[in-house]
Amino acid sequence: MGQRAPLVITAGEPAGIGPELCLSLATETLPAPFVVVGDPAVMRRRSKETGIDVDVREVEPADAADVAAEPGRLPVVPVRFAAEVTPGQLDPGNAPALLDGLRLAVSGCLDGSFAGLITAPLQKSVINDAGIAFSGHTEFLAELTGASLPVMLLVAGDLRVALATTHLPLRDVPDHLTQDLLRDVLQVLVADLHSKFRIGDPEVIVCGLNPHAGEGGHLGQEDDAVIKPVIDELAGRGLRVRGPLPADTAFTPNAGSRDAILAMYHDQGLPVLKHAGFGNAVNVTLGLPIIRTSVDHGTALDLAGTGTADNGSLLAAVRLAAELSAA
Amino acid sequence: MGQRAPLVITAGEPAGIGPELCLSLATETLPAPFVVVGDPAVMRRRSKETGIDVDVREVEPADAADVAAEPGRLPVVPVRFAAEVTPGQLDPGNAPALLDGLRLAVSGCLDGSFAGLITAPLQKSVINDAGIAFSGHTEFLAELTGASLPVMLLVAGDLRVALATTHLPLRDVPDHLTQDLLRDVLQVLVADLHSKFRIGDPEVIVCGLNPHAGEGGHLGQEDDAVIKPVIDELAGRGLRVRGPLPADTAFTPNAGSRDAILAMYHDQGLPVLKHAGFGNAVNVTLGLPIIRTSVDHGTALDLAGTGTADNGSLLAAVRLAAELSAA
Repeated sequence: MGQRAPLVITAGEPAGIGPELCLSLATETLPAPFVVVGDPAVMRRRSKETGIDVDVREVEPADAADVAAEPGRLPVVPVRFAAEVTPGQLDPGNAPALLDGLRLAVSGCLDGSFAGLITAPLQKSVINDAGIAFSGHTEFLAELTGASLPVMLLVAGDLRVALATTHLPLRDVPDHLTQDLLRDVLQVLVADLHSKFRIGDPEVIVCGLNPHAGEGGHLGQEDDAVIKPVIDELAGRGLRVRGPLPADTAFTPNAGSRDAILAMYHDQGLPVLKHAGFGNAVNVTLGLPIIRTSVDHGTALDLAGTGTADNGSLLAAVRLAAELSAA
Repeated sequence: MGQRAPLVITAGEPAGIGPELCLSLATETLPAPFVVVGDPAVMRRRSKETGIDVDVREVEPADAADVAAEPGRLPVVPVRFAAEVTPGQLDPGNAPALLDGLRLAVSGCLDGSFAGLITAPLQKSVINDAGIAFSGHTEFLAELTGASLPVMLLVAGDLRVALATTHLPLRDVPDHLTQDLLRDVLQVLVADLHSKFRIGDPEVIVCGLNPHAGEGGHLGQEDDAVIKPVIDELAGRGLRVRGPLPADTAFTPNAGSRDAILAMYHDQGLPVLKHAGFGNAVNVTLGLPIIRTSVDHGTALDLAGTGTADNGSLLAAVRLAAELSAA
């Protein structure tokens, strides 16, 4: 290869905004070379539909690492969709090719052809409708890379928020939050802040599960019975983890310095992150043997083909992947 | 009285930072006259301890409405504590006088002697230790004023966040969130945004209970089964309430305009509010027949007597009470 391996971006659900967001990247100055995995015919048609004037250049997987986007030109490693793609119209017939594209991208990350993976959004339901068991992008990537515990980290500016549990009904959260889970998540978080974010001795604030971190047992037992012992154990082994802190303190300057905050569940951590991020938050999957970032939004089927979708989150995801893979 | 009725500020737990925060108000320029309810001896001693040089002027309850703070001078309506007060040392012996002070302040708000109430923090446990059943400031005020459903609203800048449930263990939240509760809370919220905040036709965004507002039932049933029908019912009666929105969308500009956001539980709404508020958030109790604001922090026993506590939240609480009572 000789030069720096490019990042690889999967264009995601073709009926969504992924293809046009990828096109728009060729009009930006980015800090690292990149290639896109998608259907060249879809990309070309979307270029016409949206007026994002970009030269879509087809490249073979074997050559992908030697080619990289330059202003106005977008190298695309092809996947071929079985069905015609109309913006906004989902077609389960395209699900197998979509997943093939992900496999190709991941295998290139694992063998060093690509420096890191950035994923545009998928539509989970259309893959399930194709009769393929698929519980989410992240889980699929964990399976492909043999990772046992992917951990979701959202980044907006200098705010980093990881989640101990992710997509669960609220009433299922307390019973899912076991000491084993919490210990594993914290270890992945600290290890990846060190190895991927290159933070010397990462400092993590852990939120309580209950309001006021349980207020000494008056507002729930889990903070003292489940969370605190794990923090004490890991702190005893030298990790700089502290808490549980009331979640409404953890995100304020009063909580002191930290490299990341671990929220116990989705809506404890993400509202503040996304409020702070103004639509430019990036999702990073920790616990994988590859760099993987993704956008913090969905397929936006209603905007697909209009060229009006904001590429801020994808740009931020590419920039962060470039930063994380620069080591 | 002749002139505008003053605001009344209860100095709160005397061993905490409340007394010195009140002293510090006499060094600020505020938009409305005010008096403090507290123990003058405690206030004078705290003035010496902290170096906040203020002339503590004792006033009788009957005269309070005619006297108001001016720079360097603080009118104090006296309550007398039974026990000596040492900063940082709680004493249940002072609980009855504390509650008497609150009663005095509330009765003055109800009869028009005071324009509104601002409360410095109490220490709930010390009142319970005195053998007095007391579940919180807000509940006590509701009882004193005959209000059936106090609603907690936090304000930071132009962000207003109300809570459908407040101080509950997380695992108890889903079952507490009934249609009746939600309907009542939304009605109080809309009514008070109108009557107290003087917003013509208030617009409210309602968060979902589950992540992604339940994602069509894949992540919990309550969003569709409990929340949505209440929103539809109230919207059908002309209220501008909409949702349920995913909480991580509700706080972003993408969610569109709103005068307030209703979060379903404490840690869904307050982390983002307090992060946005940088320690100057104000708690407003809706559903009371009086104006009541309070600080968003606790008694900070460890800081009491040092004069280093930040008066930002109390200042913001006084300013907001002045604004709400200016009508």
